[in-house]
Amino acid sequence: MKCLMAEVNFSEGKDKELIEQVKEAMLDGDPIDLMEISTDADHNRTVVTFKGEPKAVLEAAKRLSAKAVELIDMTKHVGAHPRIGAVDVVPFIPVKEVTVEEAIEICREFGKFMGDLGVPIYYYEDAATCEGRKSLPKIRKGQYEGLEEKLKDPEWIPDEGPSDFNAKSGATVTGVRFPLIAFNVNLQTKDLEIGKKIVKAVRAATGGYQHVRAIALSLEDRDGIVQVSMNLTNYERTPIHRVFETIKSEAAQYGVGVVDCDLVGPVPVYALMDVLKFYLRTHGFTPEQLYM
Amino acid sequence: MKCLMAEVNFSEGKDKELIEQVKEAMLDGDPIDLMEISTDADHNRTVVTFKGEPKAVLEAAKRLSAKAVELIDMTKHVGAHPRIGAVDVVPFIPVKEVTVEEAIEICREFGKFMGDLGVPIYYYEDAATCEGRKSLPKIRKGQYEGLEEKLKDPEWIPDEGPSDFNAKSGATVTGVRFPLIAFNVNLQTKDLEIGKKIVKAVRAATGGYQHVRAIALSLEDRDGIVQVSMNLTNYERTPIHRVFETIKSEAAQYGVGVVDCDLVGPVPVYALMDVLKFYLRTHGFTPEQLYM
Repeated sequence: MKCLMAEVNFSEGKDKELIEQVKEAMLDGDPIDLMEISTDADHNRTVVTFKGEPKAVLEAAKRLSAKAVELIDMTKHVGAHPRIGAVDVVPFIPVKEVTVEEAIEICREFGKFMGDLGVPIYYYEDAATCEGRKSLPKIRKGQYEGLEEKLKDPEWIPDEGPSDFNAKSGATVTGVRFPLIAFNVNLQTKDLEIGKKIVKAVRAATGGYQHVRAIALSLEDRDGIVQVSMNLTNYERTPIHRVFETIKSEAAQYGVGVVDCDLVGPVPVYALMDVLKFYLRTHGFTPEQLYM
Repeated sequence: MKCLMAEVNFSEGKDKELIEQVKEAMLDGDPIDLMEISTDADHNRTVVTFKGEPKAVLEAAKRLSAKAVELIDMTKHVGAHPRIGAVDVVPFIPVKEVTVEEAIEICREFGKFMGDLGVPIYYYEDAATCEGRKSLPKIRKGQYEGLEEKLKDPEWIPDEGPSDFNAKSGATVTGVRFPLIAFNVNLQTKDLEIGKKIVKAVRAATGGYQHVRAIALSLEDRDGIVQVSMNLTNYERTPIHRVFETIKSEAAQYGVGVVDCDLVGPVPVYALMDVLKFYLRTHGFTPEQLYM
């Protein structure tokens, strides 16, 4: 069965009644599997993650976003997290038997729908219309407060919807990306420089693996531990175990061991199949065999 | 949510209509999660695996078994697999938040129900009433054909039900056991003796791990490969990775490598959490984070 995931980020993290109304609008249709609603008051932002049959996911994303656009007024929005609109960013993520091309079609349907609501739309990552729009931080640069100016720049004509500034709703960024895996490796050292050297070794930007984004930091709540904090953006091409083994061997040259690791948030079971295959050589094992 | 698994083995693997009636009887009640129905004509035997809320699983096992006892006549049964009754063996397997003690209670309720149907009942493994009845092969020794004699032996008075021979239904063995994991390690050698030495190193009977049963065999369909074929009977106490690493290092002394491994049939996700923890050091990772 085809499975597509969507992660709708909208700009309200305090008003519980508003969030409840948005959630109800989302659920008022064909069933989807609601995975997580994560609300942050400081960020003043809510992230709704759900998956299911691609069309059902598209329709749920539309209902959710239409309600959020109706209820949220960006002229009054304050929050710590970067944002450019009421419905800020909506990635569609292929999970099972959905090609990137199919996901892009869904994403474009969503973009047109939002454009028709009067919201300027930018496509990012695999759905981007040009190289310069692949990166979310680039599109979001200047944030909501800088959007009116940005829209006047011919380089930033939206992919869908009006080019006029919509003060109430801002803009929405939507796209397609592979499932992210948040993977942290904790090193037995106080020396942040060692963490930084390892980051250089593994991340794409400095010659490392193509699908690794990484930073090094000292953990505040665990004394004497430096963490290499990573997003793996394509676990098929850059699998978890390969990154882990590289970090282990790079750390060893400084006499530093790996204390433990964190896999944070949802993890596609397929990513772990690759790990098992590597360590246990279980080439024929499939997720369908698992039960809990 | 509590989850108990049951695996009902009954002595019919050819008559599709009969098997269908048994299945329908099982499903005619509170919902359970039917995992697998595996029918073998040579063995003349069907294994039905299902799980769910413990009481629902108990009731489904009762309905299934009552129907099988009604329809199967052991006086006419011929098959390659060892068996002692129409409903041959019924293990209950704790999967989640069910203690062994709770599972034993369920098993005993099932045993009393079957006894009331006129079937002699033996409890085995963790539900056994004495040390001599822990082992299924010991209880089943002599099979259906030897049961009439066996019942005359004071040592083999049933735990429930009549001591008289029931020619139509034979006897039923029911018990509680941990989830079995079928794990095979394939070695790059033609020399079966090396396989046998490794079996000796890992299995309980010859000084190895407490919860490993193992044999060595030459694979017929893969030339030049010897397989160590194992059942791990308690993955919490004797985890997969420990057995695997031991085999790897034992094989190395003969200059033999591990080609690959097979995890056969259903595997509890918790068993793989232990594997990941060992190799990736992901101590905080939980199965709830997985999606597919």
